[in-house]
Amino acid sequence: MKSRIASRRDLEFQLFEVLDVEALTRRPRFTEHSRETFLSALDTALDVADRKFAPHNRTADEREPTFDGERVTMIPEVKEALDAFIAAGFLVSARHYEVGGMQLPSTVARACHAVFEAANVGTTSYASLTIANANLIAAFGTPDQKRRYLPHLHSGRFFGTMALTEPQAGSSLADVRTSARPRPDGTYSISGTKVFISGGEHDLAANIVHLVLARIEGAPPGVKGISLFIVPKLRVLEDGSLGERNDVALAGLFHKMGWRGTVSTHLAFGENGRCVGELVGEPNRGLSCMFHMMNEARIGVGLAAVMLGTTSYLHALDYARERPQGRPLKDRDPLSSPVPIIEHADVRRMLLRSKAYVEGGLALCLYAARLVDEQHTGETAEDRAEASALLDLLTPVAKAWPAELCLEASSLAIQIHGGYGYTREYPVEQLYRDNRLNAIHEGTNGIQALDLLARRAVAGGGRSLELLGRAVARDVDAAGKDERLRGHAQDLARAFEQLRATTQRLAAATAADPDLGLANASAYLQSFGHVVVAWMWLRQGAAAARALPGATGPDRDFYEGKLAACRWFFRWELPCVAHPLAMLAALDPTCLEARPAWF
Amino acid sequence: MKSRIASRRDLEFQLFEVLDVEALTRRPRFTEHSRETFLSALDTALDVADRKFAPHNRTADEREPTFDGERVTMIPEVKEALDAFIAAGFLVSARHYEVGGMQLPSTVARACHAVFEAANVGTTSYASLTIANANLIAAFGTPDQKRRYLPHLHSGRFFGTMALTEPQAGSSLADVRTSARPRPDGTYSISGTKVFISGGEHDLAANIVHLVLARIEGAPPGVKGISLFIVPKLRVLEDGSLGERNDVALAGLFHKMGWRGTVSTHLAFGENGRCVGELVGEPNRGLSCMFHMMNEARIGVGLAAVMLGTTSYLHALDYARERPQGRPLKDRDPLSSPVPIIEHADVRRMLLRSKAYVEGGLALCLYAARLVDEQHTGETAEDRAEASALLDLLTPVAKAWPAELCLEASSLAIQIHGGYGYTREYPVEQLYRDNRLNAIHEGTNGIQALDLLARRAVAGGGRSLELLGRAVARDVDAAGKDERLRGHAQDLARAFEQLRATTQRLAAATAADPDLGLANASAYLQSFGHVVVAWMWLRQGAAAARALPGATGPDRDFYEGKLAACRWFFRWELPCVAHPLAMLAALDPTCLEARPAWF
Repeated sequence: MKSRIASRRDLEFQLFEVLDVEALTRRPRFTEHSRETFLSALDTALDVADRKFAPHNRTADEREPTFDGERVTMIPEVKEALDAFIAAGFLVSARHYEVGGMQLPSTVARACHAVFEAANVGTTSYASLTIANANLIAAFGTPDQKRRYLPHLHSGRFFGTMALTEPQAGSSLADVRTSARPRPDGTYSISGTKVFISGGEHDLAANIVHLVLARIEGAPPGVKGISLFIVPKLRVLEDGSLGERNDVALAGLFHKMGWRGTVSTHLAFGENGRCVGELVGEPNRGLSCMFHMMNEARIGVGLAAVMLGTTSYLHALDYARERPQGRPLKDRDPLSSPVPIIEHADVRRMLLRSKAYVEGGLALCLYAARLVDEQHTGETAEDRAEASALLDLLTPVAKAWPAELCLEASSLAIQIHGGYGYTREYPVEQLYRDNRLNAIHEGTNGIQALDLLARRAVAGGGRSLELLGRAVARDVDAAGKDERLRGHAQDLARAFEQLRATTQRLAAATAADPDLGLANASAYLQSFGHVVVAWMWLRQGAAAARALPGATGPDRDFYEGKLAACRWFFRWELPCVAHPLAMLAALDPTCLEARPAWF
Repeated sequence: MKSRIASRRDLEFQLFEVLDVEALTRRPRFTEHSRETFLSALDTALDVADRKFAPHNRTADEREPTFDGERVTMIPEVKEALDAFIAAGFLVSARHYEVGGMQLPSTVARACHAVFEAANVGTTSYASLTIANANLIAAFGTPDQKRRYLPHLHSGRFFGTMALTEPQAGSSLADVRTSARPRPDGTYSISGTKVFISGGEHDLAANIVHLVLARIEGAPPGVKGISLFIVPKLRVLEDGSLGERNDVALAGLFHKMGWRGTVSTHLAFGENGRCVGELVGEPNRGLSCMFHMMNEARIGVGLAAVMLGTTSYLHALDYARERPQGRPLKDRDPLSSPVPIIEHADVRRMLLRSKAYVEGGLALCLYAARLVDEQHTGETAEDRAEASALLDLLTPVAKAWPAELCLEASSLAIQIHGGYGYTREYPVEQLYRDNRLNAIHEGTNGIQALDLLARRAVAGGGRSLELLGRAVARDVDAAGKDERLRGHAQDLARAFEQLRATTQRLAAATAADPDLGLANASAYLQSFGHVVVAWMWLRQGAAAARALPGATGPDRDFYEGKLAACRWFFRWELPCVAHPLAMLAALDPTCLEARPAWF
């Protein structure tokens, strides 16, 4: 049975035919794996997601978590689903066998995780946060911290959060005020307020491990004086057992437009002077530790946007195939039977556009995950360093592009449903509300744009962009040999060249005048994203063109669909970057010069 | 005090400086009016909207109408607001003095109505529907129908609805099945089911007048066999008093993502064979009567989208001015005070983009209203015919463009608020949900696109488009004399020429093969909209450039803001139509050729 929440066929295509994850099984870390074990993990994910996550997605939206001043209450299905997720091993899917993990490549683990996000992003978030939290402690924790926290984060006995934002400091982490006063035993007394903390309070796990940004007394101002702390809800004793309650109080909940299943909290640390935290990593280096988690979380946000868009698209596709309405333009005899709306070109346009966005976004996020695998298991040090540089460059794109375009897929899904799509009797309106968060959390898209243009695209004289150019050129050369793709390949090469030249121009301008050089950073990010996704479509088109001659039945249709979406993206979308890139290169000052009083 | 719901300054600018409504006071119908009476009506609207509509906008969303099987219940503020609206005369603002109206020009009446939509679109809808309903009966009703219904629709004793959609026939009115069987007394026995009927049941008025599309027994199939009927909830006796309940039953409510204050109903007509309806207009001509109401309603939808976007923008603007966060790119000293976020170029970009969309959309919808005034009171028969043709051409654009782009303004308003904007503690998330409906109701944007390209833009050999071209050319010539606008004027002329040539190409292609010619109709509508709104910005820019030399203080800023938004639209938006228009002219078959099985 075809699942409505995700396309197994497409995941298989992306993993094996585009990203060749099977090649990873030749590496020491993955020798015990095979195509079969990868598919088996994916099928388990699809099964658990279908049975345990999808069924309460609407209920969790309608009956969001509540706080009575004492406890947070939520529907029991959330815990049941997470228990099944944990029992199936997905909390440690990418971790070593020795800690009980499945030792899957990051690419496959992400694909499995994606399926849960498609089914129920609100419930999955608790797991996503816990995984990222454990990864951070694994990377930066002391041996003692790893011993006391990791086994419990891996087993799901503890859940995790990340606590960055404060009421006066949203995107501006330089203004974090939460303070940390050293205590004689080496721990710190934490005091401050954090807002929008997802999973900040619940009874889903025995304990909650907050990773909190705070300032050690006397630290330098700004981002260079921020440290990172483990602050558990309940203190964790030497043997891992739980001690008394730490001084972390729930001050209230936020009530969101969507993504309601994930409790969003306002937390007060140390109101009674008894909140104890443990330093993670070096003092004043908290932000770089946190960005370890944030970079991972950003790709996670991109993938969540992709999967919300994917599920929206699949619902719309089912509806378009089943709903009879209207007649062909050439034969409007009212006595004839209405046709399914997928027969109307405009409905196909909406479907093709959605497909191009969600499958392009999926290719991008899984490509980023594949870079994580290269970074960790690449065969040479150079391979690993290159993967690392590419991943760094693509992270804001993999976050922001899907957050914008896959939201559009959710919107198109409503449109395809017509009036029904706007009602809560159908699932797509919720997916649209859920998906709107992705351009905001883990750094707004505007912040991603500055991060990309001011830092990542120009760092080291633009070395990462040069690497990207080489990777693109390899695929352009390969695809250029196929007649069906040659024109697309040339278009991509041209667009990349314009992006490269524009970046150089902007780098020089920014060095002279950052206000002017960075004024249109958002347009830069959007164009960058379109070029990168065009590349992803060229790669998918090449894989489809390779496979098509030997394919039969539904496989033929699948590959033809890939080539159609590829064509659509190259014909209708990629050319749209030429103008904004030209405006960027011209250093258009329209927004910069608009004075606040003019509005 | 500056209102958050709408900009009085901008409404004044649009009415007097761009559309010169004062000139209308020289026409017989409006001789008793003056600039002062127009402004007084606008101020009354702002006052009533602020006091009676805005305060319960959130409550009406949180506590949507409910149905207990007997009655629909809603919060009492809705009736209080509508009573104030009626008492202030806005139900008859454009109607003759002799029926108790204010006899305002349509342009001014629309501007007043817009203010209520900005404050609370859900509550205002009951009034919008009643006004449109009364207009239709005034246009097509028999003298007896006018006598029995109009006074009560004008006084607000009766409210109105329009009942087109059926479960099996959304956009496809050809498939309407509701039947009408002639009764001996000349009335009809109505039987059938209608869905998504806004305002279909409530206790806000003594009676509800449904205007229902149905098929007289034996009528031809398809749209040529549809008639229009008045079907009151309670029968209306000769003297206007109310008789027994008609056989119209509420089968259930729809629960929408937004716009929740307007009850959306599923109505069953004639379940007990006792539903009586009165024919309006000629038999089998129901659709053309209904389109009288629909065309008006479509501009109303466009304007609602504009006003939801406007309010979103104004909230975001207030927030951007008040919220300190981050520092200038050139001076990031963390010891300095954070600046209001409007100081960041990217926030100004979002504001300028929103401003360009909502003020461009407002100019378009009020221009359409001005055409209604020309159509009715133009000095020569030719003027009136021309206005009528232009209005006909622009109606789908005035509906669809704001539904798409002013929704984007609502989305940007969330983005400017960051995490707070995504919570229900702030107003913008509701405005975004509300605004999403506008691309769907009164004919989806896809239907508008087909209507535009298959009919309105090509009718009579493209005569309406030629008229539009002349109107554009007049403004291009005038603006070309101003140095600041010359480049924009040239750009507009070029874009219009491309639109004209593309339309001709598509008309010829459609005649040969409608599937191919109309396959990309949505892209045509979007590009058409951008060209028209560029024209609206040129007109606004010209008015601002005229006024700027003599302006001082806040007026200078206002005009500079207009010129900045005009620049932004011409620099960043208008050039983006070149590519889709080229694809249209090339008859790109990508969507048309995508087979259903490929998805």
